[in-house]
Amino acid sequence: MFDLSLYVITDPYLSKGRSHREVVEKAIAGGATMIQLREKESTSLDFYRLAKEVVSATKKQGVPLIINDRVDIALAVDAEGIHVGQKDLPAPVVRKMIGKDKILGVSAGNIEEAKIAEKEGADYIGVGAVFSTATKSDARQAIGLERLQTVAKSVNIPAVAIGGINHDNVEAVIQSGVDGVAVVSAIVAAENIQKAAEEMKIFIDRSK
Amino acid sequence: MFDLSLYVITDPYLSKGRSHREVVEKAIAGGATMIQLREKESTSLDFYRLAKEVVSATKKQGVPLIINDRVDIALAVDAEGIHVGQKDLPAPVVRKMIGKDKILGVSAGNIEEAKIAEKEGADYIGVGAVFSTATKSDARQAIGLERLQTVAKSVNIPAVAIGGINHDNVEAVIQSGVDGVAVVSAIVAAENIQKAAEEMKIFIDRSK
Repeated sequence: MFDLSLYVITDPYLSKGRSHREVVEKAIAGGATMIQLREKESTSLDFYRLAKEVVSATKKQGVPLIINDRVDIALAVDAEGIHVGQKDLPAPVVRKMIGKDKILGVSAGNIEEAKIAEKEGADYIGVGAVFSTATKSDARQAIGLERLQTVAKSVNIPAVAIGGINHDNVEAVIQSGVDGVAVVSAIVAAENIQKAAEEMKIFIDRSK
Repeated sequence: MFDLSLYVITDPYLSKGRSHREVVEKAIAGGATMIQLREKESTSLDFYRLAKEVVSATKKQGVPLIINDRVDIALAVDAEGIHVGQKDLPAPVVRKMIGKDKILGVSAGNIEEAKIAEKEGADYIGVGAVFSTATKSDARQAIGLERLQTVAKSVNIPAVAIGGINHDNVEAVIQSGVDGVAVVSAIVAAENIQKAAEEMKIFIDRSK
């Protein structure tokens, strides 16, 4: 099983020169329940090395590592799961490659995508962008809390909300009925990553 | 077994609006013995769809399809092999993922890289760039025919030469002792792809 409560996604451009490993270790120390590595620009070799470095930390700390998009990287480092967007490999193709035990997450921006993801064997959906965000260049238009709730409730698998979630809005997001929040800058760009994670975890736990 | 003689690499920017499938079918009709798909810019979904479309043609025509860099795409479409450069996943990691039956090619620009590739289980090496070329933006400096020969002879696995090879220089390249030539623009950008392949195949066969 996995816990979507505080799902931290790394971003090399926001982490102020700190290594992915440092960011990940501090986020987990502060209560992150899942980690996702996202790397769109680096070479396959660099992504592989990075994932290998991070997975040794996440395995030690007992938190699942999810690789974004690149199934080969996930398999190469034996990560616990893979997350695919609507422009990545189709979920059934991914499931066939990773087997039934690894976690498969699929991005869903509307009810149709959510239902297809569920039908195709996703273990969870990532719903967003809830609020507008500058983090992901190809992020779709913000859907807001009402649609987040509608999409999350349209399926029986857990949902994690993503997009512009921070300490100010996290309680409202959790109260809309999702199982957790995926956070990038509110944790990764914080001066004190561990403290930022701890504070957010408190908000999440008391809103559930 | 596989035949490196005329190894055609697709390039979407050179193919003058013709589909990858059309380019590949005509190249094989003209005598291409292997096909490589290289896509660095497209989304994973687009690369997957493209590879799926092309693999149905190459399987029908009985020519191995090699996917560049992306092991997940190769596995997803059951391509016959994968080619990795020095900035891609390490050869032993790839071999573990693809099993012993799929073809593994590794780029080698010098003797050291060639010997490591052989030791790590590569089925062939790609040696180059023989001549300077505008096709691959990250291509290394041209090594020339003499070094091509030295690198190719340093290992017991077959070698395919790559980089700036065309109808004018292909005979000299083959005579330097490689098993084949990897060609992009001389075939893919030709007005008549099949004829360009046929002519090159004649030059290759008579130089061996």
